[in-house]
Amino acid sequence: MKRFTTVAAAAALVALPTLGFAQEADVTPPNGEIGYIFTTFMFLVTGFLVMWMGAGFSMLEAGLVRQKNVTMQLMKNIALFSIAAIMYYLIGYNLMYPGDGWSVEGVIGAFMPTTLEPVGLADTETDLTYASVGSDFFFQLMFCATTASIVSGTLAERIKLWPFLIFTVVLTGFIYPIQASWKWGGGFLAPGIDGQTDFLDFAGSTVVHSVGGWAALTGALILGPRIGKYKDGRTVPMPGSNLTLATLGTFILWLGWFGFNGGSQLYMDTAGNVADISRIFANTNTAAAGGAIAALILTQILYKKPDLTMVLNGALAGLVSITAEPLTPGLGMATIIGMIGGVLCVLAVPVLDKLKIDDVVGAIPVHLVCGIWGTIAVVLTNGDANLGVQLYSILVVGIFVVVTSGVVWFILKMVMGIRVGEEEEIMGLDMAELGMEAYPEFSKG
Amino acid sequence: MKRFTTVAAAAALVALPTLGFAQEADVTPPNGEIGYIFTTFMFLVTGFLVMWMGAGFSMLEAGLVRQKNVTMQLMKNIALFSIAAIMYYLIGYNLMYPGDGWSVEGVIGAFMPTTLEPVGLADTETDLTYASVGSDFFFQLMFCATTASIVSGTLAERIKLWPFLIFTVVLTGFIYPIQASWKWGGGFLAPGIDGQTDFLDFAGSTVVHSVGGWAALTGALILGPRIGKYKDGRTVPMPGSNLTLATLGTFILWLGWFGFNGGSQLYMDTAGNVADISRIFANTNTAAAGGAIAALILTQILYKKPDLTMVLNGALAGLVSITAEPLTPGLGMATIIGMIGGVLCVLAVPVLDKLKIDDVVGAIPVHLVCGIWGTIAVVLTNGDANLGVQLYSILVVGIFVVVTSGVVWFILKMVMGIRVGEEEEIMGLDMAELGMEAYPEFSKG
Amino acid sequence: MKRFTTVAAAAALVALPTLGFAQEADVTPPNGEIGYIFTTFMFLVTGFLVMWMGAGFSMLEAGLVRQKNVTMQLMKNIALFSIAAIMYYLIGYNLMYPGDGWSVEGVIGAFMPTTLEPVGLADTETDLTYASVGSDFFFQLMFCATTASIVSGTLAERIKLWPFLIFTVVLTGFIYPIQASWKWGGGFLAPGIDGQTDFLDFAGSTVVHSVGGWAALTGALILGPRIGKYKDGRTVPMPGSNLTLATLGTFILWLGWFGFNGGSQLYMDTAGNVADISRIFANTNTAAAGGAIAALILTQILYKKPDLTMVLNGALAGLVSITAEPLTPGLGMATIIGMIGGVLCVLAVPVLDKLKIDDVVGAIPVHLVCGIWGTIAVVLTNGDANLGVQLYSILVVGIFVVVTSGVVWFILKMVMGIRVGEEEEIMGLDMAELGMEAYPEFSKG
Repeated sequence: MKRFTTVAAAAALVALPTLGFAQEADVTPPNGEIGYIFTTFMFLVTGFLVMWMGAGFSMLEAGLVRQKNVTMQLMKNIALFSIAAIMYYLIGYNLMYPGDGWSVEGVIGAFMPTTLEPVGLADTETDLTYASVGSDFFFQLMFCATTASIVSGTLAERIKLWPFLIFTVVLTGFIYPIQASWKWGGGFLAPGIDGQTDFLDFAGSTVVHSVGGWAALTGALILGPRIGKYKDGRTVPMPGSNLTLATLGTFILWLGWFGFNGGSQLYMDTAGNVADISRIFANTNTAAAGGAIAALILTQILYKKPDLTMVLNGALAGLVSITAEPLTPGLGMATIIGMIGGVLCVLAVPVLDKLKIDDVVGAIPVHLVCGIWGTIAVVLTNGDANLGVQLYSILVVGIFVVVTSGVVWFILKMVMGIRVGEEEEIMGLDMAELGMEAYPEFSKG
Repeated sequence: MKRFTTVAAAAALVALPTLGFAQEADVTPPNGEIGYIFTTFMFLVTGFLVMWMGAGFSMLEAGLVRQKNVTMQLMKNIALFSIAAIMYYLIGYNLMYPGDGWSVEGVIGAFMPTTLEPVGLADTETDLTYASVGSDFFFQLMFCATTASIVSGTLAERIKLWPFLIFTVVLTGFIYPIQASWKWGGGFLAPGIDGQTDFLDFAGSTVVHSVGGWAALTGALILGPRIGKYKDGRTVPMPGSNLTLATLGTFILWLGWFGFNGGSQLYMDTAGNVADISRIFANTNTAAAGGAIAALILTQILYKKPDLTMVLNGALAGLVSITAEPLTPGLGMATIIGMIGGVLCVLAVPVLDKLKIDDVVGAIPVHLVCGIWGTIAVVLTNGDANLGVQLYSILVVGIFVVVTSGVVWFILKMVMGIRVGEEEEIMGLDMAELGMEAYPEFSKG
Repeated sequence: MKRFTTVAAAAALVALPTLGFAQEADVTPPNGEIGYIFTTFMFLVTGFLVMWMGAGFSMLEAGLVRQKNVTMQLMKNIALFSIAAIMYYLIGYNLMYPGDGWSVEGVIGAFMPTTLEPVGLADTETDLTYASVGSDFFFQLMFCATTASIVSGTLAERIKLWPFLIFTVVLTGFIYPIQASWKWGGGFLAPGIDGQTDFLDFAGSTVVHSVGGWAALTGALILGPRIGKYKDGRTVPMPGSNLTLATLGTFILWLGWFGFNGGSQLYMDTAGNVADISRIFANTNTAAAGGAIAALILTQILYKKPDLTMVLNGALAGLVSITAEPLTPGLGMATIIGMIGGVLCVLAVPVLDKLKIDDVVGAIPVHLVCGIWGTIAVVLTNGDANLGVQLYSILVVGIFVVVTSGVVWFILKMVMGIRVGEEEEIMGLDMAELGMEAYPEFSKG
């Protein structure tokens, strides 16, 4: 997916005021330079849609936490997005696509005014068969940031700011890129367990969503549930403070997902590729709809009253479920895959509660459970998929993320503590850690 | 607009892992495959903008209802969007473009893993003169969903959830697609009343907006006004609970409308087409601005204080007004058309109240009144338009929608009742029907 | 940037139902008509992203004012955006690009149904070396609107509605376009002070952001601080009423900025141009991230608690800082430029308070201080930049805007008064001037 470069090539850029491509190309792809422009622009458009998902997670999470923790949740979201941007540039991108590898010169070079790009981001050596390296970096970065966004929701209302941000540094700089390189960087999962059958994960049900989910689960286990969440064997409901925000966040994520899945086609240089992207848009939409409807009907049946937060999570569950294979299903099958995702999400919530795993926004049912389901569901419609290879890959990634993030959480717990004090938690993180309320003038009920 | 397909063609797709276009084209359009990529990508971009309007309606309506009905309004909006997605796939799309028609095999085929597309969504037979069928489906679906979004605002705060959703099933699966096929599917309104002069409705002032408006009006008449809305001959103001959300919703709709009107050019394969789309963007923007400014000035004059909710509706009124013909007006004329829309909207609100038609968010003035105005205004700038044809078409569509939706509302009323009980209405639908508040921690004023 | 036209050419358009380009082109640019389509579509996409910034400013400002002034802030934002649209069409665009100039016929012509475009917006004479004039107009308009949005935040909570709107008329119709023409319309700043070295301001750190900042500063000085803001030598905190909205607004602006900076490349017709746009996207993102992280760390150090509103403004500061030169820096340097912007923003806030300049949302630190910083920072990475030329241009633009907007504010103050009465200010502008609350049902704390 990435065109490699050498430090020497980067150095050669020093004197160039602008980039000149056409002269340097020596390959003639189907639509030549035109194809290159199409694919690059496609990455920019789908990339900004995925960037917009950062706002979606922020609004969803700010809407689902209690009022006293809203400012903190917003802070974590804007900070994690910023950290992802910088860490993925400094370390992650080159770790994920280990061509000639990460180098000190590459990183330092990007600080030199006349060097246009760090190693791995230089465009001159790009032939015209793909897309601008800058656009590829921009697009891939947003996937890394999405992974981090998933974690913040689960651990809300009790984790300290700085340990969470340090974890984000490790997640976006190391854990995410390393495992992503196994599949998308041409590593050992790309050809699959037997060296022949590919592990298939089109846009990252496993590589992105389950990774966020595993990191969140590990954090939730080490952190423990919120005070008062599980009392006398009962689960105490702690309803979100602002359901309009949660709904807005869901719509933003739904919109952004067209970029997430559509852009993962990676090429828009031919009629066939753009038609595939179209099909992906349609399937992504219908899977979300299926997930929402399934959750609507199921909560009506189970609880006699439809539950808005479950319907929202149902839509997201449908989106995660179709992410591993948004291309090969027909619309009907895509709807079914999304509906099953919605059902799994609704059913997983009480299971987690029974296990006293306190997931504030439902990120584990949505991103982990449906991430696994979506990865398995590939075999339903893609003849190239192999159930064994899919399960093996889910497992390998899961073990890696649980172990590495477990170690990081544990070290953070030892060194600086990861949980706020009891008094601070009851008071709310906004006043306790930030001294600032999200809605200072609204009186509390 | 749609390229037709046969069940046989769909069946032939079974074994194809990916789509291959270039080899199959036997026409040479102006810009060939490149034009196809341009138009398809244009549909995806404008389509996601129209999808985003679903969020706009949600926020607008959630902001304009009272606090006790916010969760329900959000629920209706996310559910209607999901229902539209599924019904338009199952029934609507093929009903709207009756080539070789809807078929059981087509719908079932989409559930088969190896069939890539249901009938009507297969891409292989697409020649390169247009766009991917998937992108066309995606774009057209969003128009269907928009129609349903219009209805939910008018009937807010008193209609039961499930009857509303069942109405949405019929509206998106049957009523909208059938009348849309009369114009956009090549039906009897396409050549117009005399078989020669076209009924002109570029992006759907009539086909989309007035249809939503008529269905809403019919529902409002059958449902009756909210308790306490009209007392002793006076109209009791029931101000919206969250004007920031209403403003956000308006901005979202304004943004989405560039896709709505721009994408309706249907081609972006030549310089002429993309220049037309540019003109449409500029006209759409200025009509919205004109509507907002007109409402600002008029409410200042009439009520001595400018009214934000009327300014927001004025912008939307301007948008609906330019929708039937966003291409031929100059910027000045587009501004005037929008301003007249804004004026009509402001004036229509008290008229509806006098008639005791309770329209919670003002969707009838915006979408029905200005939908009619916009359709008539086509004759001001487009020499091909004929006032008689326009009026005839408005009437035919209006009668069809009023009768069909009237029948559906009436049956629903008989069978299951469409209105919540008095006690539930006073308590608010959120607690009564859903048991969940949108803002549980904010105390009520 | 604009292709010029004559009144005669506009007149020739009268009879044309649609535009036909291909036949009229007599130049053969690198990618011909295809390049034209690419660049035009790029303007539409980046243009709608910049339009979306209007929503971003609205949400940011509505979130940072106190509850009693929220409706007014929303009203100002939707109204100023609408005014900008109309004034820029009537006066601004032709003033900014003084080809054969603004003309009565051109403006009137746009009201004639058969004239497709006002002077300056006709497309027929466009050769295929650039883009549709309509798309250029749409894109440039959004920059004009952005300038006006900057002003409203600073002057919130005390300025009367109508004087503010009249100021917006002058700003968007005259002040902004006149100074913008000096650089972007080929005026005396384009070749710079010595007639040889260009003043470099890629997307408008000076031309857009500092202009808004200077107008805001001038207004703040003439208007004076809010009642109670500075008491006994202390600055009284008046926290924003809704930090989720402020965060949402920041994310919207962040997203929109990809269009702001990316579209300013002005061409997407070659691989080199689209690669440059990619680099701009990546740099814009990392500068925002750098600004946010810098503000996070700095407020932690200075105040012991990280400050969310400063982190949000830090991100915006990073964005403004990279706007004058988003292309030549490497990612590392772009991050540093953004970080310095974030630091300057945090440090400027107490300085303004010490000077008793009351800037409600922090627009002066963000847009003026970082607008200046960004313009200077061009010399760090662009070898064509000259520090003297940059400083001279900053100064010339600053003096022009301070003087002209000062005169306008002063006349408005004399003629109609620009500040609400003391009682109204304490009561809040919402009830005093509009008779409408943004959140009528939430009880006040």
